[in-house]
Amino acid sequence: MIYLDNAATSYPKPRTVVNAVKNSFINYGANPGRSGHKLSVKTALEVYEAREILNEFFDGYGGEFVSFTSNCTEALNVAIKGVLTNGDHVVISSFEHNSVTRPLHFLKEKGLISYSVFDVCDSTEKTIENFKNAIKPNTKLAVVTAVSNVFGRILPLEELGEIAKNKGVLFFVDGAQGAGIIPINMKKMNISCLCIPGHKGLLGPMGTGAILHNGMNFLPLIQGGTGSRSFDLLQPSEYPDRLESGTLNVPGICGLKEGVRVVKSMGVDRIFEEENFICNEIFKGLKNIKNVNLYEENRMKNNYAPVLSFNIEGKHSESVSAILDKHGIAVRGGFHCSPLAHNFMGTKQTGTVRISPSVRTDKKDINILLNLIRKIAFNEFI
Amino acid sequence: MIYLDNAATSYPKPRTVVNAVKNSFINYGANPGRSGHKLSVKTALEVYEAREILNEFFDGYGGEFVSFTSNCTEALNVAIKGVLTNGDHVVISSFEHNSVTRPLHFLKEKGLISYSVFDVCDSTEKTIENFKNAIKPNTKLAVVTAVSNVFGRILPLEELGEIAKNKGVLFFVDGAQGAGIIPINMKKMNISCLCIPGHKGLLGPMGTGAILHNGMNFLPLIQGGTGSRSFDLLQPSEYPDRLESGTLNVPGICGLKEGVRVVKSMGVDRIFEEENFICNEIFKGLKNIKNVNLYEENRMKNNYAPVLSFNIEGKHSESVSAILDKHGIAVRGGFHCSPLAHNFMGTKQTGTVRISPSVRTDKKDINILLNLIRKIAFNEFI
Repeated sequence: MIYLDNAATSYPKPRTVVNAVKNSFINYGANPGRSGHKLSVKTALEVYEAREILNEFFDGYGGEFVSFTSNCTEALNVAIKGVLTNGDHVVISSFEHNSVTRPLHFLKEKGLISYSVFDVCDSTEKTIENFKNAIKPNTKLAVVTAVSNVFGRILPLEELGEIAKNKGVLFFVDGAQGAGIIPINMKKMNISCLCIPGHKGLLGPMGTGAILHNGMNFLPLIQGGTGSRSFDLLQPSEYPDRLESGTLNVPGICGLKEGVRVVKSMGVDRIFEEENFICNEIFKGLKNIKNVNLYEENRMKNNYAPVLSFNIEGKHSESVSAILDKHGIAVRGGFHCSPLAHNFMGTKQTGTVRISPSVRTDKKDINILLNLIRKIAFNEFI
Repeated sequence: MIYLDNAATSYPKPRTVVNAVKNSFINYGANPGRSGHKLSVKTALEVYEAREILNEFFDGYGGEFVSFTSNCTEALNVAIKGVLTNGDHVVISSFEHNSVTRPLHFLKEKGLISYSVFDVCDSTEKTIENFKNAIKPNTKLAVVTAVSNVFGRILPLEELGEIAKNKGVLFFVDGAQGAGIIPINMKKMNISCLCIPGHKGLLGPMGTGAILHNGMNFLPLIQGGTGSRSFDLLQPSEYPDRLESGTLNVPGICGLKEGVRVVKSMGVDRIFEEENFICNEIFKGLKNIKNVNLYEENRMKNNYAPVLSFNIEGKHSESVSAILDKHGIAVRGGFHCSPLAHNFMGTKQTGTVRISPSVRTDKKDINILLNLIRKIAFNEFI
């Protein structure tokens, strides 16, 4: 199998990540922060180290402001619902995922909030202008994805963060396709809250994620046992406990910690460069195939992450990906949980075939892929 | 180390559980329910099998009505907040954990709901009477733990479920200390919704849990990408998707599936009998030590799960557990996130030392434990 679906989850995981998970069952097998015995304390320290590593990796506001979640979607729900109150307005980009739009739509339908969508353009200046214009007097929050999960477009986080700061608007970033793929620096980019998955660019296990923030006053979405202030019926206000009720995913967190270590040792810049080189090779190859539609003509000039979408004229993206699968290539067809992006890019009828390679993808894989797509485009398969 | 803290998390996990987690990284390493390629479909099938196994184990209402969560606390929050609306009344037992009381307290403080606590007595008849009396005309829901996480008391679920059914009240069970420890049969016990952790009696990894229900109309707590109905801004209403947004903890679910298989092959009845025999031996030994306070005099007669609490006269439970830890015994001191239970049992000043053995605990472990406690009680340690 040639696996080109790393935007859904990175595969395979580094061997050291799998070993970290496996070893955690013995070395960090007690419930952290609950009991006071050695194994529990040792486990709690390991979990705390994972917070510190994530905090350092994203230049966050301290290990205590890193709370673990089960995925990026949970982190986004906790963040968004944790700050919005009646009458608030929210600004989001035209590339947001359902993990942002569905919670907002839910709050809107309840009559609590409103939101506006700003278009992301080829020109960064125009994007910034659109963002500025979308901000209203009652805008409390902007939620922006670091990278489009369908088209790979990188959003100008630093510029948008600067505007949000100047306008007194909270700036939340959906790091689903950005964490571990492009450099994200919370302080430099004025990010108030960063939501990340552990299982994509950070190479950790599925079932991991985190919310990193600047210490703001979130109302928790979930209350319960935290192992702290047991006698209080109120959820503790201290972080990270405030946002972490119930037993943590210790094996997952140990794997994520190792995943981040691997990414750090390879270097995000180097990973980005290698993966983007591969992606651009695929893009160039696809450009030469008749009947193939591509959507980001500026990929070779502008800022893109290693995710690209295409279609074959007259075919649904899911049929194309099914044929590729039959021939041993794993990509994703369909809508990728991002209706906004498809509306914006004009692909709402067919969806897109999404290709997301990794540093392991080689020249041979690319050739096999391009040959197959050529055959599909020329109707050599039924 | 003699590990007697299985009520916090079971340790060590069976070797086959660790192997199932490890192997999942290769065999079930794609994102389930997202892409259509073989590895993704294979992973989705494995996850579905885990639903089916849990459904069968608890005699539930179908695999589609099993949604995975990151722990039992999340499951309880999803369940409780998913059904309560303005003006509802809730009945809970005097043994509920903060995972039940904190969400309810939060809703109460918001002015949305009210709740009453019924006392669990030695006499089942009296307990049933108290439960009946606590139900009001506006009672929508009863939430009852299967087993007290501090004192091991088993609640008469079948009798309470029957009353709830007759009164038209939803009957939710917190299976934190009951799942895999005592038989729980949703249909026989009229349980509308069962919340469970995967990492305690079911021997799965930390970071796993589930909500099993009878198909009722839950309003989801979290919205986001589900891989289904991508183009709809509304959260899908179909189960299990409705309650599962974002990427699932596939390694954890694979481990949990194997944990349940191990429990099934050993037999819940046999595990219960063996662990309770050990617990009763400890209880009898503690009874003979001067200055040791025990709280459940009827343990030998009545229904108790393998969890017991004690104190040493004039000492805080956390000092006692610290000395035990120093000598290689892992137990938990303090309040165990259950203020209600301590208020009810009169242990709110000291908390309790909690002992929770497993089938691996042997006669030698018990002797070492009892000898140490005797020394602590006789002030042989400073």
